[in-house]
Amino acid sequence: MPASVVRSAGNARLRWVRDLHASRKARQEAGVFLLEGSRLAHEALHADVTARLVLRTPELDAPSQSAAAAFARSGVEVMTVLPQLLSAVSDAQTAPGLLIVADRPRPPLPSSVRLALVADRLADPGNFGSLMRTCLAAGVDALFCTPGTVDPYNPKVVRGAMGAHFHLPLATLDQGPDSPALAGLNLWLMETGAGLAYHQIDWRGPVALVLGSEAHGLDPAWRRLAAGSVHIPMHPASESLNATVAAAVVLFEIAHQRGSP
Amino acid sequence: MPASVVRSAGNARLRWVRDLHASRKARQEAGVFLLEGSRLAHEALHADVTARLVLRTPELDAPSQSAAAAFARSGVEVMTVLPQLLSAVSDAQTAPGLLIVADRPRPPLPSSVRLALVADRLADPGNFGSLMRTCLAAGVDALFCTPGTVDPYNPKVVRGAMGAHFHLPLATLDQGPDSPALAGLNLWLMETGAGLAYHQIDWRGPVALVLGSEAHGLDPAWRRLAAGSVHIPMHPASESLNATVAAAVVLFEIAHQRGSP
Repeated sequence: MPASVVRSAGNARLRWVRDLHASRKARQEAGVFLLEGSRLAHEALHADVTARLVLRTPELDAPSQSAAAAFARSGVEVMTVLPQLLSAVSDAQTAPGLLIVADRPRPPLPSSVRLALVADRLADPGNFGSLMRTCLAAGVDALFCTPGTVDPYNPKVVRGAMGAHFHLPLATLDQGPDSPALAGLNLWLMETGAGLAYHQIDWRGPVALVLGSEAHGLDPAWRRLAAGSVHIPMHPASESLNATVAAAVVLFEIAHQRGSP
Repeated sequence: MPASVVRSAGNARLRWVRDLHASRKARQEAGVFLLEGSRLAHEALHADVTARLVLRTPELDAPSQSAAAAFARSGVEVMTVLPQLLSAVSDAQTAPGLLIVADRPRPPLPSSVRLALVADRLADPGNFGSLMRTCLAAGVDALFCTPGTVDPYNPKVVRGAMGAHFHLPLATLDQGPDSPALAGLNLWLMETGAGLAYHQIDWRGPVALVLGSEAHGLDPAWRRLAAGSVHIPMHPASESLNATVAAAVVLFEIAHQRGSP
């Protein structure tokens, strides 16, 4: 093992990364997020994201090795640490041995948003990551989050989103339904069993689909400005769908009606 | 705290439950599965499933209390244990304080299967649970699993399926594509970017949709008997969808074309 391997959990850089892993505020103030594993590392290189620090274990597989080398070549500090120290800031069951601290990508909002998804207080990070991945695949122009929604840069979200952060514009709706970002969009509320079936709606105009959490449902404030509610017809023995699954069914119907993505 | 509270992890019943929690073989040999929380407990009561044992903590919320009382009235042994002993066999972040050991429900296969989903070596329990919930909602007649697929009675699967086990017929395909259960069904393979777009297919005939794992894809043996491959058109920046999300999009298109569920 090279002499330069960090063996102490008290190392200042490691303490910084542990803080970024644990604290939304720390991540936000630094304007960074954490990426784990060779797949996200290569996406970050490809997307030209600015990395601040790379942590790696002494032994790496070839794809992780090549990503670490590419960051080193571009002048990023690459620090080798004991595997157990990296596992402590990993969200994977088996830590992949490579972790990047990178500036948050800021894919720009298109000048005209035609399809947005509003996440209203969604709390589960795994679900939210999968939602981001789904939104990107379905051609959503912007993902808007209300205050109370899980941090999109939570490490578990990043893991589940599988690179969507590099392409999907994100914004917070500080004023809920009255937020200026929603101007000109028809608000459709996803609600189990309420309103119209999703395939009965003409989705070709500008739309924001509003999705509440399975636990808390939608904030009633949305009703005031909504065009209507939309549901997915289900088998009578079924009570509900996972929020991301429900969003996917409607988003791909919208994409299909528009001849996209 | 009543004198009858079990305080020792060495209690024989608790050791049995720990074994059932940890071991697929133990669950299978006993023909049981574990249900956690008041919601699943009430579904089990409603579905007339035979419970073998109920574990509860001394303090319970009203819905859990009423479920425990209902099991006791029907003659099931209800054992009160220290919360930390029940947490040790819980898959929830916060253990709900109620756990049922119950016989596996066996919802019968319909005499004529018109829509089946085949799970080929899906390994992630959370995803598989969500898939079961989705299949039930979309009106799938049967969920077939190849050997190598996660145990449908894994506690994490049960948690994610949210009661689908009580209604969705399950079977194992020991002979893969040659299994007699698939006779008469058109096999469509879900593959990213391959074959026809999902909305270009006439889904009104009997169908088995075959879904592989994100990690390993489909066993090539399926190609020999397949009617074709089906994909979901996606935004160019997107590489793939979560397996359950992809299945949901296609299953609800099938349901819609058939005027169901």
